[in-house]
Amino acid sequence: MKGLALLGAPKAQWPCDIKKQIVAVQQMAGLLIGVDRGSLLLEELGFVPDLAVGDFDSLQKFELAKIQKNVADIRYSVPEKDLTDTELMLRYAFENYHLDHLTAIGATGGRLDHFLTNLFMLLKPEFNGYAEKIEFLDLQNSFEFYNSGTHIIRKKKDYTYFGVVPLNVVQDLSIVGAKYDLQSYSTKIPVSLSSNEFLSEKDYFKLSFTTGTVAVIQSKDVDRYQNFDFR
Amino acid sequence: MKGLALLGAPKAQWPCDIKKQIVAVQQMAGLLIGVDRGSLLLEELGFVPDLAVGDFDSLQKFELAKIQKNVADIRYSVPEKDLTDTELMLRYAFENYHLDHLTAIGATGGRLDHFLTNLFMLLKPEFNGYAEKIEFLDLQNSFEFYNSGTHIIRKKKDYTYFGVVPLNVVQDLSIVGAKYDLQSYSTKIPVSLSSNEFLSEKDYFKLSFTTGTVAVIQSKDVDRYQNFDFR
Repeated sequence: MKGLALLGAPKAQWPCDIKKQIVAVQQMAGLLIGVDRGSLLLEELGFVPDLAVGDFDSLQKFELAKIQKNVADIRYSVPEKDLTDTELMLRYAFENYHLDHLTAIGATGGRLDHFLTNLFMLLKPEFNGYAEKIEFLDLQNSFEFYNSGTHIIRKKKDYTYFGVVPLNVVQDLSIVGAKYDLQSYSTKIPVSLSSNEFLSEKDYFKLSFTTGTVAVIQSKDVDRYQNFDFR
Repeated sequence: MKGLALLGAPKAQWPCDIKKQIVAVQQMAGLLIGVDRGSLLLEELGFVPDLAVGDFDSLQKFELAKIQKNVADIRYSVPEKDLTDTELMLRYAFENYHLDHLTAIGATGGRLDHFLTNLFMLLKPEFNGYAEKIEFLDLQNSFEFYNSGTHIIRKKKDYTYFGVVPLNVVQDLSIVGAKYDLQSYSTKIPVSLSSNEFLSEKDYFKLSFTTGTVAVIQSKDVDRYQNFDFR
C-alpha cells in the first residue's frame, strides 16, 4: 500500500499539483496521513485523513473537534517526548499499516531546524530501514533516500537537475551515466554534490556506494512564485 | 569590516527587512556582495554590490553588462570547477577583504541541494575556519555556526524558537539555561535537536561541546506568506 503524509511546513512550498497527488493516492486505496496541523490542512483542502498523528497543541478547540469527528484513526503523541510526531507517524505507517511507499509533503521549508530534523531522522538506526521507501516532495524538490548498494535513479518528469547528498560516512560512491560522473568518492562528513544533470539521451543514472546513506534530490527552477492555485 | 552577501535562492525566502539590512551594512561602510544572479537581484533592489562573484551564465547579456558597468570588483568563476561560487566568495570576502562577519541571504530555500551545499560547505577543512563568522538569514530562520568550545548564544529579537544541529561527529554537547537543557550528548551522525526555546527571564543560553561543528538555528513562525513588500 502507498501513503501520502502532509506535515506542517508552509503551503508556499507545497507542490502545485498537491490535490492531484492526494486524489491519486486515494484512487489506489492508499493511506492519507495528517501529521499534527497537517491533518487540518488536509481537511481545508477537502480531504479527510485516514490517520492523524500529533499532540495537536497548536490547534484551536474547534479545529481539533473537526479532526476528532472525521478521522477514523487518531494517535495522540505526548509533547516533550523522545520521538517527534513525524517519527511516530513513520512507525505507525510502516509497522501498523505496512506501507511500501510514503510521500511526505510539508517536510521541507519553513522552520529549517524542523526540516533538518526530518532529513536527519532517516540516519537514526531505528528509522534508517524506512529510508528507501520515503520521498519528500515540495514545490521544487523531490528527495529520495538510498542505503549502500547499487541503484538505478530514474529521472522524474519535469525535473531538470539532481544533487547527490551523502548524509554520513559514505565510501566508494560512483555516479555513472550522468552529466558529471564520479568514481569512488568517499567522505566522512555530509556533503551535497549539487547541480548535476541527467544526460539528454538517458532517463537514468547509476549510483553505487558501499557504506552510509545518500539523499538524491531532483530539483527544478520555478518561473513564478507560488500563488496557491493548488491543483 | 562586516559584509552582506546575496545569493540566488528565491525572493520568497528573503527576510522582510532585507533593504534595511543592506542599508545598515552600507552605513557602516561594510562590503556588499552579489553571488552570481544575486548581483542582479541587488541591483533590482536599488543597490550596487561592491564585489560580484560568479560565472554569470544564467544572466542575459544586457543583465551582465549592467553588472560590469556598475560593480567595482568582479571575479569571474569557471563553471564546472571544484569550488562553488559561494565558496569562492567566502575566500575573497575573508582573505582579500578581511571581513570579520558575513550575513548571507538567499543561501536557503529553492533548490535544496544548493541549500545543503551551502550548509555542509562549512564542514570542509578549508572553510570551517570561517564558520563562526557567518550567518545565514531568511524569512523565518537565522543560522549561526559554532566549532568546539563554550559559547553564549543570545536570543535574537523576534525569534521564538531555536534548534541545535550537530552537523558531524559532536561530543559532550551541553545546553544550559534553555527550556530543554541537555547534558553531555554525543552523536556520530548529524541530528537536529529542534523546537527548543529561550527561557522568558533570560535572553541567552550556554552551549558547549568538545568536538565538531554545530549550527544554531533561531526561528519564528510567520503569519502571512511573503508578499514581496520588502523593507
